[in-house]
Amino acid sequence: MLQLYFFPMACSLSSRIALLEAGLDAQYHFAHIWTKKVVDDGSDFRGVSPKGAVPVLVLENGERLTECAAVLQYIADLKPEMGLAPAFGDPDRYRLQEWLSFIAAEIHKGFLYPTFWYRDDGSLAKPRARIAQTLSVPAEHVADREFLVGDRFTVADAHLAWALLLLRPAGVDIAQWPSLSAYLERMQTRPAVREAIATEMALRKTLAA
Amino acid sequence: MLQLYFFPMACSLSSRIALLEAGLDAQYHFAHIWTKKVVDDGSDFRGVSPKGAVPVLVLENGERLTECAAVLQYIADLKPEMGLAPAFGDPDRYRLQEWLSFIAAEIHKGFLYPTFWYRDDGSLAKPRARIAQTLSVPAEHVADREFLVGDRFTVADAHLAWALLLLRPAGVDIAQWPSLSAYLERMQTRPAVREAIATEMALRKTLAA
Ligand SMILES: N[C@@H](CCC(=O)N[C@@H](CS)C(=O)NCC(=O)O)C(=O)O
Ligand SMILES: N[C@@H](CCC(=O)N[C@@H](CS)C(=O)NCC(=O)O)C(=O)O
Repeated sequence: MLQLYFFPMACSLSSRIALLEAGLDAQYHFAHIWTKKVVDDGSDFRGVSPKGAVPVLVLENGERLTECAAVLQYIADLKPEMGLAPAFGDPDRYRLQEWLSFIAAEIHKGFLYPTFWYRDDGSLAKPRARIAQTLSVPAEHVADREFLVGDRFTVADAHLAWALLLLRPAGVDIAQWPSLSAYLERMQTRPAVREAIATEMALRKTLAA
Repeated sequence: MLQLYFFPMACSLSSRIALLEAGLDAQYHFAHIWTKKVVDDGSDFRGVSPKGAVPVLVLENGERLTECAAVLQYIADLKPEMGLAPAFGDPDRYRLQEWLSFIAAEIHKGFLYPTFWYRDDGSLAKPRARIAQTLSVPAEHVADREFLVGDRFTVADAHLAWALLLLRPAGVDIAQWPSLSAYLERMQTRPAVREAIATEMALRKTLAA
């Protein structure tokens, strides 16, 4: 069975959404990304992946795949009939890759990551000054589209939905971009998205307590 | 003909390397990413791509593709016989995507970007404290491998070679990781890599003057 190392509400959320949308069974392991311990058994998460970061997908052959862009495409391709990624050969596949890269590099590493990991004002002024321009790109794109790529839900939507959810705790009110708030609401009507969020929010609360 | 909007020695270098390795003709447009002007004709680069960032690849049908991870895979797939990316369906394709994401998100957006665009010490302390851990990942990987993925040069190597080249002006001496310096030297023996760098270094000098 596939295994996903995740941290509640971290970027691995989109991999959980993809697994649920695909109807794929998986074993989920809570990896504590601050302490680098696997919560199941207290083992060293860096033994699972030297990056010490989620997501890590353990494939059926035992290999470990990291990086949301790769993990999400891998999951989508396990169930091509679900259409979670345009087929290889379809020009839209490159649009999917373009969005996955933009979300991971520009929204996540360019803004969310410094916000949650660096915290001090010095580290944050420049990323914060840039985020509105970054978000204008998806905001314009979804102004007249239901989904990021083509006319159905893909793993790029799973990833953007995660990023948009995290913007609020990062201090950015996406109500400034009505198309983005409407998009996030639409995504949150999907059973897989709701289930993934509910599961991880419940686990997240165990952290704060 | 394909067209590539580039800025000398920016991340678009890897797309130029890929085009040369693939033996694909292309028209190259110098886009000034600080002034957002296309140098050819003084037009607004944001008219080409609202992101205002290189690379932008103009496809044969006139569509524009951005994000190194997508542009590089697109170029590789135009000439499958060159093996610049594992074929779709080959498990190594996901390793390629994993490396492309890691380079773009962790090395580029996590470190090179703040270094060259944010500059002030406040923005740089945290990314700088993190870069050695980031670089240990590819350093270990290439310690006993000639290339990042499989046993031949791929677009992931083009992208890592670019990132490693930029680390020196970013103040990181990669001699600390002998496997990375050796890897970069190996990549620089390739005619396409040398030609791309020579072309862009010459253009870069026109900027400083
Ligand atoms: N480029 C990676 C980023 C992964 C990442 O930064 N994950 C965060 C959680 S959202 C993490 O586990 N961080 C732990 C750390 O950086 O030490 C991807 O797209 O998957
Ligand atoms: N995530 C993008 C990053 C593109 C990028 O940041 N390009 C830089 C040059 S290396 C740029 O043009 N920056 C202009 C700007 O950010 O205003 C990718 O991987 O292609």
